[in-house]
Amino acid sequence: MNRFALNSATTRRWPLPDLLAGCADAGVANVGLWREDLAPCGVERAAALVRDHGLTVTSLCRGGFFAEPGWYDENRRAIDEAAAIGAPALVLVSGGLPPGSRDVDAARAHVGEAIGALVPHALAAGVRLAIEPLHPMFCADRCVVATLGQALDLARPYPPEAVGVVVDTYHLWWDDQVWAQLARAGREDRIACFQVADWVTPLPAGVLLGRGLPGAGCVELRRFREAVDAAGYTGPIEVEVFAEEVWSRPGREVLDETIAGYLAHVA
Amino acid sequence: MNRFALNSATTRRWPLPDLLAGCADAGVANVGLWREDLAPCGVERAAALVRDHGLTVTSLCRGGFFAEPGWYDENRRAIDEAAAIGAPALVLVSGGLPPGSRDVDAARAHVGEAIGALVPHALAAGVRLAIEPLHPMFCADRCVVATLGQALDLARPYPPEAVGVVVDTYHLWWDDQVWAQLARAGREDRIACFQVADWVTPLPAGVLLGRGLPGAGCVELRRFREAVDAAGYTGPIEVEVFAEEVWSRPGREVLDETIAGYLAHVA
Repeated sequence: MNRFALNSATTRRWPLPDLLAGCADAGVANVGLWREDLAPCGVERAAALVRDHGLTVTSLCRGGFFAEPGWYDENRRAIDEAAAIGAPALVLVSGGLPPGSRDVDAARAHVGEAIGALVPHALAAGVRLAIEPLHPMFCADRCVVATLGQALDLARPYPPEAVGVVVDTYHLWWDDQVWAQLARAGREDRIACFQVADWVTPLPAGVLLGRGLPGAGCVELRRFREAVDAAGYTGPIEVEVFAEEVWSRPGREVLDETIAGYLAHVA
Repeated sequence: MNRFALNSATTRRWPLPDLLAGCADAGVANVGLWREDLAPCGVERAAALVRDHGLTVTSLCRGGFFAEPGWYDENRRAIDEAAAIGAPALVLVSGGLPPGSRDVDAARAHVGEAIGALVPHALAAGVRLAIEPLHPMFCADRCVVATLGQALDLARPYPPEAVGVVVDTYHLWWDDQVWAQLARAGREDRIACFQVADWVTPLPAGVLLGRGLPGAGCVELRRFREAVDAAGYTGPIEVEVFAEEVWSRPGREVLDETIAGYLAHVA
């Protein structure tokens, strides 16, 4: 349990003070948070609440969306928030194609340049930029970075302490190259964050909110955990599940089920 | 237009006799057919209709689904139907994970063995087995073969005249390795079928019926056609679109729109 972390996306409708108290009460030491969690009370108050409960923040979601106007300033603010909440990593979801564009190569090149532009601020803030490859079904409208290999290629020009990658089982499980790329990620010291969710079908309309708690689907979660361990990663393991069915239930009930699924299928 | 082919999946509700007459009337020389098209009138009658209209059948969809009981006999029948209708290639969609299984490696290994078991019958029938990689969002429940590289790896043990691959823009466009794999497919003489559809968002529930006619989405279709040409492929170009919105309209109207999209975005 010392590596387990609840990512707040799993209990989307649990207000932050209740979530932090619930984690402390359940013996959970680590939480992954979202910028939306910090907004209602402000990042300083949120940081104080985290400290009061003796919790560790494992990552902040999220920066990225580099096709949006104002991405540079918005991502600098996200880095500052990650530093203020004590998150060692800021998860970056790159964004999809610009409106009307079909040029996926250009969009990917822009992601690399944008990350480079943010590296000095990230290094100064002590926050690692964590590039998250999303499942290819999100390539057009959410994330042009679609494989772990691609994320590692994007990270390559920058020092590992500045830029890493997110390994998320939901997004990567289908890829027959993922095991070799996990080993590479270890060699290159790039694993900044490890997130777990399960793949369940049928997918809902829009495909965003159809993930499963650990054990509900078909992903070899323990194989992933062992491969990430073998790559030298010793950090926290976040369970991050986007699912309307999960969100509609009480936070503590979901947390208990999440822990049970983690112990049975991941740890 | 001499390379254009209407795949009958694009006009799913157009009965075969009307579809064949409509194609001949529109100056279309090639059609890709489905086993479901042949069932109502029988394959011999369908073959006679195709001949009467002076049409060429470019492929038959589909065999595969190797996790189903009875896959061997069913695929032998599909090969026989492809030969009877004059299709040079039988498209294989591998099927997903067996019920309750999480072992994607085993499922993929079984696909390779199943194809090997079918090779003698395919060679005897003069029908090429065409392995189709589907988009990774179908990996769990429809097709464990998720990339062109993987399809080429599966084809490798068998002679190119027995086993090839399907290049479908809808399934492959997101993959940054696809251009290198298309060149490899050319070198290894594996391109058995080239299919075109566009990627449009948001995806519908179940994600099967959300494709777009050429030009409706974000795929660099002409880049694909040029890459397939550069790989030495000179065969037909099927437009194959699964979309409820398209299916709900009259076949001839869809055919005319399909041809216009093909000329503007592919040819």
